[in-house]
Amino acid sequence: MGLIGKKILVVATDGVEDREFFYPLYRLAEVGFKVLVASNKSSFSGKYGITFTSDITLDEVSPEQFDAIILPGGQSPAKLRKIPKVLEIVKNFAKAGKLIAAICHGPQILVTAGLVQAKTLTSWPQVSWEIKKAGGKWEDSEVVIDGNLITSQRPDDLPAFTKAVIAALA
Amino acid sequence: MGLIGKKILVVATDGVEDREFFYPLYRLAEVGFKVLVASNKSSFSGKYGITFTSDITLDEVSPEQFDAIILPGGQSPAKLRKIPKVLEIVKNFAKAGKLIAAICHGPQILVTAGLVQAKTLTSWPQVSWEIKKAGGKWEDSEVVIDGNLITSQRPDDLPAFTKAVIAALA
Repeated sequence: MGLIGKKILVVATDGVEDREFFYPLYRLAEVGFKVLVASNKSSFSGKYGITFTSDITLDEVSPEQFDAIILPGGQSPAKLRKIPKVLEIVKNFAKAGKLIAAICHGPQILVTAGLVQAKTLTSWPQVSWEIKKAGGKWEDSEVVIDGNLITSQRPDDLPAFTKAVIAALA
Repeated sequence: MGLIGKKILVVATDGVEDREFFYPLYRLAEVGFKVLVASNKSSFSGKYGITFTSDITLDEVSPEQFDAIILPGGQSPAKLRKIPKVLEIVKNFAKAGKLIAAICHGPQILVTAGLVQAKTLTSWPQVSWEIKKAGGKWEDSEVVIDGNLITSQRPDDLPAFTKAVIAALA
């Protein structure tokens, strides 16, 4: 195993929380991972207006080419959860037992994809009700690890979140 | 030596490039460093509008308590270079041979503090003219290390920048 050569997929669109998008992107690049950004838009703007150009379209995503998927928060997940291809991608990672890491509103995508049942996770606190409604157990921690699922609540959790992601892939 | 217990000072104010501020902040916290933010304001807004809270005032800074200082870019350095206390702090780090890491427009503070003469550094390209005018050598690289001075050009250099900072303090 080891860290070299790991390929990570980040899925985001307009309204993504800028820190939750950029921190994992830069941090995992620093480790030496190959990080690709997939989106329904060729370029998109974060919640605070930082613009970003995506690397591939959603249709170009082959989940088998990646070792993990990262779902940053903000207003991006509410948009992405309406796109069938996004749900298909995430379900594919889950089925293959690959790492799924979601922060803030990112777990909303997992709820819609039907992946939180009987799982323990965290999220932006206001998302907890729908996680519980979908049969998940919500925990008030900066990072929660349940099998192949890593979740965090907010930008300030990013150091713990990415540390857990890197450890899980090492 | 080792990484544990290192104390890092970040100096920033309104208009700081958001990524250049929060990336080192989270990244160095992840390593286990104690990172304190000093500013002329108790809270300030990044270039893109992310609000940050400072930990201490500029007058509360005792440079001898820190192992390194970080100067993020954006429009923050142009404001900070006009504040005598900021220049005094940076000169104190230089005199003590402690690590000074500046990215983007951050080196503007070093120019005003008279610390670039005969040094090799990089910066946001538009800042190069004043570095050269002040007797510094400007190099077009993502990260330049010259003695206790580490400099980078832009947000996308953050993985290389923080990697160099951590290596220098290890």
